[in-house]
Order: sequence, then structure tokens, then C-alpha cells
Amino acid sequence: MYIGIDLGGTNIAAGLVNEQGEMLFKHSVPTDSKRGAQAVIDSIIALVEVVKANCPEGVDIKAVGIGIPGIADPATGVVLACVNLGWFDVPLKERMSERVSLPVFIGNDATVAAVAEFEVAQKGAYKDAVMITLGTGVGGGVMIGGHMLSGHHGIGSEIGHMKVGEGLYTCGCGGNGCLETFCSSTAIIHYAKHLMTTTGQRTLLTEFSDGQMDAIDGAMIFKAARAGDALAQAVVDRMVKYLSIGIINLVSIIDPKAVFIGGGLSGAGDYFLDKVRDTVDSLKYFKGSPCAAIEIAAFKNDAGIIGAALYAKLEQDM
Amino acid sequence: MYIGIDLGGTNIAAGLVNEQGEMLFKHSVPTDSKRGAQAVIDSIIALVEVVKANCPEGVDIKAVGIGIPGIADPATGVVLACVNLGWFDVPLKERMSERVSLPVFIGNDATVAAVAEFEVAQKGAYKDAVMITLGTGVGGGVMIGGHMLSGHHGIGSEIGHMKVGEGLYTCGCGGNGCLETFCSSTAIIHYAKHLMTTTGQRTLLTEFSDGQMDAIDGAMIFKAARAGDALAQAVVDRMVKYLSIGIINLVSIIDPKAVFIGGGLSGAGDYFLDKVRDTVDSLKYFKGSPCAAIEIAAFKNDAGIIGAALYAKLEQDM
Repeated sequence: MYIGIDLGGTNIAAGLVNEQGEMLFKHSVPTDSKRGAQAVIDSIIALVEVVKANCPEGVDIKAVGIGIPGIADPATGVVLACVNLGWFDVPLKERMSERVSLPVFIGNDATVAAVAEFEVAQKGAYKDAVMITLGTGVGGGVMIGGHMLSGHHGIGSEIGHMKVGEGLYTCGCGGNGCLETFCSSTAIIHYAKHLMTTTGQRTLLTEFSDGQMDAIDGAMIFKAARAGDALAQAVVDRMVKYLSIGIINLVSIIDPKAVFIGGGLSGAGDYFLDKVRDTVDSLKYFKGSPCAAIEIAAFKNDAGIIGAALYAKLEQDM
Repeated sequence: MYIGIDLGGTNIAAGLVNEQGEMLFKHSVPTDSKRGAQAVIDSIIALVEVVKANCPEGVDIKAVGIGIPGIADPATGVVLACVNLGWFDVPLKERMSERVSLPVFIGNDATVAAVAEFEVAQKGAYKDAVMITLGTGVGGGVMIGGHMLSGHHGIGSEIGHMKVGEGLYTCGCGGNGCLETFCSSTAIIHYAKHLMTTTGQRTLLTEFSDGQMDAIDGAMIFKAARAGDALAQAVVDRMVKYLSIGIINLVSIIDPKAVFIGGGLSGAGDYFLDKVRDTVDSLKYFKGSPCAAIEIAAFKNDAGIIGAALYAKLEQDM
């Protein structure tokens, strides 16, 4: 049995998770990061105690996994940066280990969420796989040889910040050309508005949003594209182009068995998936080259908690 | 002791290599690939026998490593494609194993050359590192956790085919935007000629090449750039820009401890290295983010043979 902690900007959620990834108990408290790092760590430790108290008698808890919205040094467990929490150089593992008599493993939130996909939804069938999460931003997790890749400094698997072209706006990271600025919901909404403003082209998006440009969201863009709207199709095609470049770069560098696409935008389903598969195919290293399967992610709820727990299992079993 | 084989388009070179990467014996024969795959395999087996016969008595040979100019399925040892040799779906490992009573390991030539850098020149100090080789093309090798990354289908570490922008010409692989089309000697010579033809700008390259545009090579471009030639500097700056994008993508995805730059163009030394370091720094995920060290590769001769031998050692020790 493992304890998984999902440390988010709004809530800290903790769960008791078995080796199959089933959650037996769950509890959460507000993060309230304004209290400062030590107070938040105190809350995490209190949550661990609550979960322990709700563990069936005689059942052994082997480790605690924590998914953080930032990066940690894999060697020391020091959180280097969680910008949203205002954390810099916080020795999370050390402070936890002092008071929780269990091994503590810290991973990036997108990395641990990918563990839930690979280990639970895909039942451990993929030892070399990549998960790309398309939401407000673009995140990811990379598994190589059954082990999650965090990198030497803890900044690996930052798929959303791969440079794939010349972007229209500056990424949240301060750079230009990041995958996130082409393929997140933020990016496609930005580009749809850009086209509407600069071309004046008629589009179903005006109708879907009741003429309120700020009400346009990712789902509307896909709905309009499927309905044959030329402007929305141009937006989707641009997103597909750059996502496919990102995928083919992962294929050229890592060559996984499969790439799973998750997050809100992956709900666009086969219409979207078929386009991505065709475009990746057209970008392959050479015709006939083997290539990762491209699939929509299947895992739905509590990926943060369950993934964190199974991340601890993977790390401990190494 | 290990046997390393460097299977090239012109020659097949074999060597007896100890665990420290020292070569005790070396022999080579022409490849003459027109003979067909089986005849070439017969030559490789004959070379193995020659090396065995020259191994000091009582010394144990543990395995054979072969570096191939193409890709092989890591699970089966089938060579999927060596375009230059005209090999497709050649069961190299099986045919070798039938007649050589030693374990056989097959890796891409750039991957095994990287092993020589990591294990010999850097004395095994890097378990997470990338080597980028800048020559006529761009190749690479990726080590993660002390193991060379070949990928699920054997097409990993193809760094030269990462897409980094919109290129001026179609890559040898048939695609556009590959790193190789910005950063190889082929690419910078192409771009220098392009600028000379389209701008008519005066350049030292005319003098260095005695007015023979086809005589321009990579070394001339770097020499002219160092001498303050504006056109040559524009060529180098463009190469540095895209190489830095390639490096920062490797940092964002894999986060190695170090990136080593090898191959003929790496001879440009500090003038080049300083520019690359500065540009990568400007592209970092966030200011203050940890990042791979960027270094010029140190290994010089026989990387193909020595790397193949030590690749076999790494694979066998896994």
C-alpha cells in the first residue's frame, strides 16, 4: 500500500492506494500557499497521518509519493521551484522524512499523472512511453525502461517547453516557440481570436460564443471545425501540425512504444486523433520507419493522487 | 576483453578492446556492399576470427559489439535499414550468433561512438549525457542512467532529425526542418552559398576559396567568421541558433548532466562553444533553471570500434 499526495495550487489531496492503483481512502485540505512553505508541509504531514489512521489494520504502507507543480532535485529531494506556490529551494523530502517514518519520493505532477496512465489504464503494458497532456498548458511524462524520466537536475519531461517553431506570443516561461504556445487550449483560443481579428472571416465561433469572443473555448473550436468551419479548421490544423512536430521529435529522440495524448483537449477524439496520426506519419524519418503508436489517454480521475502513489512504488522498486 | 566492429560504407574495422577502452589489436577489410548482405556478414565473422586469433592466450573475450550505419530492432537484432549498404530486414544478430560463439550486441554507429566519449574520454563520469556529432550530417547518442538509449523500435537518438524550424532545403531523410539541415557542414556551406548568391555581399569566403564557390568548407566559414566577416558570422549565428534550439529541446525532454559536441565542426573551439552556451542560456526554461553543461567532445580516434566494444560491455552488464 502507498500514500499518494497531489500538491496543487488550490488543494492538497492525499489518498491510500494499493499496488493495482485502486484508491481506498481519500482526503484533501486547502493549500493556502500564502501561509508559507513550512505550514504547507505541516498540512502534508497531517494528511499523511490521516491516511495512515484510515489504513486497514495489519496493512503495510511502503512509501509516500508526492506530485508537485514544479521541479525537484532528484538526488536531494529539494524542491527547486514551484512558481505557483512561491517555493524556491525548499528541502521537502528532508522535512518530510524527519517526521514521517516512510520513504518519500517527489516527482513532477505531470510525470506522476503519466504513471497513472501507464501503470493503471494501460496495465503496465508500456515500459517505454510518453504521455502528453493538452490542457491550459502542455505537460508530459516520459517512461524509459519502466522508469519515469526526471532528468539529471529534475527538469526533464518538460515536453510543453520543447521549441517547435516561431510562436505568436511569449510563453509563460518567458521563451518563444514552446509547444505549449501552439497546442494548449490557451494557444488555440489565442490563434482563433487572432484569425477572427485579422481576417474578419465569418465563423461559427461567433455564434457558439454569442458574439462574446472571450467566451470561446477549446471545445467550441473543435465543434466548429467538425462542423466544417474553415477558420476553426485552420486553428485545429495548426495545432495538429505543431503537436505532430513535437511527437516526431519525441520519436526521433526517445522512440517510445506509444504516445498517449491526455488532458481536456484530447476529448476531441477520433477527428483529432486521425489528423495527428496522419501528420506524424508524413513527418516520419523515412517511409516504412517503425514509429510509436499514438493513442488517446484512458485514465480519468484522481491521476494526481494515484499516480503519485505508484510513482513511489516505481522508484522504490528500481 | 571485447571485440568492437565498426561497419562502415567503405570499410569494416574490428578491434580487440579492453574494459578501459584501450585497443590492443585492430584490423580492417573493405565493405564492398555490392556483394550483398551475406558476403558482408561473412567478412565480419572472418574479422571476429582474426581478432580472436590475436587475443593474448588465457584472456577471456566476453562479447562482440557492432556499430551499424542504420537502425536495428533492439529485441531481435534484425537490421531494419542501413540505406548506404542497401540492407533492409537483415537478421544480423541471428546470423552472427550461429557462427560466433559469443553474445552479439548491435547499435547505431553514432550511439556507439558516443559510448567511447562517455566511457573513455569522460571516464564514466556521466550517466546521463548526450553527444551531438556535427559532420556532413548530424548524429547523436543518448545515455540515460548509464544505459545507451536505442528506443523501443531502435530508432531513438536520431537527434539530427529533430525538427527545429523551417529549413531551406529537404533533408536526406525526405523531411523538412531537421536539425541536420541547419547544423551540419553540408547545411552551413549551403547557407553560405545561398547568402553569397542572393545578397551579393562581399565575403572573405571568396578569397579563401579562390573564387571557387564549390571549394568552400566548414572550416573556411568558421575562419572567416572569426576574422570578422559579416556573411560568415551570419552563417555561424544561424547554425548556433538552431543547434541551441536542439540542445534546449534535449534539455527539456531528457535533462542530461552534460551535452558533448563532437565531429569535424566542433573543432571551431571556444569561439563556437561560447556562442552556443550563451544562446542555450537565453533559451532556458526559466532564469536560474539548472541546465546541462555544454562541452566539446574529447575522444578522437577509433571511436567506432572502441565504442562498439564498450557498447557490448554496457549492454551485457545491464
